[in-house]
Amino acid sequence: MKEKKMRSMMHEFLVLGCVLLGILGNVSAGITSSFVRSEFPAVDMPLDHEVFAIPSGYNAPQQVHITQGDYDGKAVIIIWVTPSEPGPNIVKYGTSENKYDYTAQGSKVKNYTFYNYKSGFIHTCLVKDLEYDTKYYYEIGEGDSARSFWFKTPPKIDPNAYYKFGIIGDLGQTFNSLSTLEHYIESGAEAVLFVGDLSYSDEHEYSENGERWDSFGRFVERNLAYQPWLWIVGNHEVEYLPEINEVEPFKQYLYRYPTPYAASESSSPLWYAVRRASAHIIFLSSYSPYVKYTPQYEWLLAEFKKVDRKKTPWLFVLMHSPLYNSNSAHYMEAESMRVVFESWFVKYKVDLVLAGHVHAYERSPDYSAFREASYGHSTLEIMNKTHAFYHWNRNDDGKKVETDSFVLYNQYW
Amino acid sequence: MKEKKMRSMMHEFLVLGCVLLGILGNVSAGITSSFVRSEFPAVDMPLDHEVFAIPSGYNAPQQVHITQGDYDGKAVIIIWVTPSEPGPNIVKYGTSENKYDYTAQGSKVKNYTFYNYKSGFIHTCLVKDLEYDTKYYYEIGEGDSARSFWFKTPPKIDPNAYYKFGIIGDLGQTFNSLSTLEHYIESGAEAVLFVGDLSYSDEHEYSENGERWDSFGRFVERNLAYQPWLWIVGNHEVEYLPEINEVEPFKQYLYRYPTPYAASESSSPLWYAVRRASAHIIFLSSYSPYVKYTPQYEWLLAEFKKVDRKKTPWLFVLMHSPLYNSNSAHYMEAESMRVVFESWFVKYKVDLVLAGHVHAYERSPDYSAFREASYGHSTLEIMNKTHAFYHWNRNDDGKKVETDSFVLYNQYW
Ligand SMILES: [Fe+2]
Ligand SMILES: [Fe+2]
Repeated sequence: MKEKKMRSMMHEFLVLGCVLLGILGNVSAGITSSFVRSEFPAVDMPLDHEVFAIPSGYNAPQQVHITQGDYDGKAVIIIWVTPSEPGPNIVKYGTSENKYDYTAQGSKVKNYTFYNYKSGFIHTCLVKDLEYDTKYYYEIGEGDSARSFWFKTPPKIDPNAYYKFGIIGDLGQTFNSLSTLEHYIESGAEAVLFVGDLSYSDEHEYSENGERWDSFGRFVERNLAYQPWLWIVGNHEVEYLPEINEVEPFKQYLYRYPTPYAASESSSPLWYAVRRASAHIIFLSSYSPYVKYTPQYEWLLAEFKKVDRKKTPWLFVLMHSPLYNSNSAHYMEAESMRVVFESWFVKYKVDLVLAGHVHAYERSPDYSAFREASYGHSTLEIMNKTHAFYHWNRNDDGKKVETDSFVLYNQYW
Repeated sequence: MKEKKMRSMMHEFLVLGCVLLGILGNVSAGITSSFVRSEFPAVDMPLDHEVFAIPSGYNAPQQVHITQGDYDGKAVIIIWVTPSEPGPNIVKYGTSENKYDYTAQGSKVKNYTFYNYKSGFIHTCLVKDLEYDTKYYYEIGEGDSARSFWFKTPPKIDPNAYYKFGIIGDLGQTFNSLSTLEHYIESGAEAVLFVGDLSYSDEHEYSENGERWDSFGRFVERNLAYQPWLWIVGNHEVEYLPEINEVEPFKQYLYRYPTPYAASESSSPLWYAVRRASAHIIFLSSYSPYVKYTPQYEWLLAEFKKVDRKKTPWLFVLMHSPLYNSNSAHYMEAESMRVVFESWFVKYKVDLVLAGHVHAYERSPDYSAFREASYGHSTLEIMNKTHAFYHWNRNDDGKKVETDSFVLYNQYW
């Protein structure tokens, strides 16, 4: 890894005052971990690996994943794929196992082509008017192919609500991805803030691209069918591939990973906001327009004004490309967004800006406090309106090792 | 106008070496014109002004405008609107007046709604395989409503080809817009590089918005039906208006102002390139994504590699928001694009970066060489592969006054 110069603009971070999380570098301030990962770059699991297994039964639903479905956490969106025919487009659900008192109707089933790939039938179903803090069971598919799962709704919006988030980004479908996901599942966190780059299907042969979106969906189902992940796009979702005449940005992502954007009056699924427990969370797209006069800019300005720190004391922002990054990889790539939004994050006292992209960990409350070239996941445990705990957990030859943690003091309270 | 601090980054301009045109400021270097415009802001012409007159005859074609239709100047796109019914969707054309040997078929006629407005029928017809350096006559419409115009094709691509461009931006439909257009027509230039902000329809009542796109089209027809304008978007084309549920960026613009983007292998009408005479011209969108991994970025990188200065010695770039601007209006708004593209403009020895947006003139070959808070137009007269003349002509109480001019030396030759 190349030596990097300190960036003079980094002093602004002190002004910002919030904690920005990214990435790793070989710099001369703060703590640099001596850890060296044994496997870099990570190796993809082969398509016949058991984590990608197709569920049994004709046309059985697969790639089941859920996300928050409204502004405040009383709805989920459930997405799944059927391979052979559309099949039933409903979700049966209720608060008792194997007893489904309610039915929700999916929106129009969609499919698409991408180069020489033809997708399965993609179902998207909004399940709304749920009770807070409640465990729901749900079933999709029919007969021998029916599959059942469960999820828990968050507590109602309350300034002192306890909630534990996970933070994952740049996941992919490597052996390390599996470690990260397994470690994350053990953490007890209830929802993931996902900072972009899901399947890395675009790194495969064009002929395998669509299939790798499917395999990724089957791989992560073990967690995503049971708890909401709240996602943003990364560069690997763009898939601008003029050489195969696929030039519509985010095409496959948009079919597969919907967001509750209309609930926050956004005009695009690529930027939106939700409230969950004691947090107001803003989701941005690093690869959509964000300068003055553009929708994302105008929307974000309006959304910041809607934040009520008395109801949701914690304010988080997610983007893919980190504003601050001392690593040589992707160095200063997000300057273009920094010059537009950094002053707003200061002004609105954002508690935490979460980013991905660099495939390493870096915390920068004061320039660059801690950095480690490791894979892993984070947890963010909100205790009350004033305190939260942050933990970075690296994958260390398959083991989970906590290597950085800090207490986060609310910027508003 | 507020005093503005000098920007330390401006020294980079010397490195850049090309000439960037924008805007006006009250700064302490170079020449500041003492001119004070008598009318600011400019006043819109009323809708019953004669410049907006509807042509006579049932369903007569109106708002006729043309643009380059291919990469090298052997094609034009002709656009017009019929108000009552689609009507004939063909262009008859030839090299003799009133004698049309050829017919070109328009693409599918389109119309749209915007808030409470319903557009007329928008025709778009590609007329291709033309001869270079030739005057063509064309006719659209039929019977008593038929209308005829003419245009001249450019000389063939040649490093020493003479060509005179006009440069206009932020035109609108004010009394000053009329002065600008009339002065421009007298200049003898053969094509306009238009740096964004066409109709300013978004500054009118929502109920008058669509109508103001039509009136603008009728106003500028006096020139645009006879010579190609090559346009980019400005902020006034975005029209993100959630309050009236119109949130699709550039919606009206895209229906009305097509570009030959596919000819330069762009995936969007919002960024493209053409070659014309001795110039290679790149058209960018300030309000579309342009960071790494996005289509505009990847396309521009590829386009710069296609430039052959031996064939087209002159390399120009257009954008709406100026990278350098010492005016208080829109100060540093384009920093987000500057940090991404400035180094490329240096590397590829761009001769001239043209921008609009600030409603004043500024030339910055060495920080800020000349600035004047005036309306007007520019001409760019390419003499050969090494020299070109640039003139700024302000509107001075209706008169045209040339107030800044310089010789441009080619950056490559
Ligand atoms: Fe990334
Ligand atoms: Fe503008």
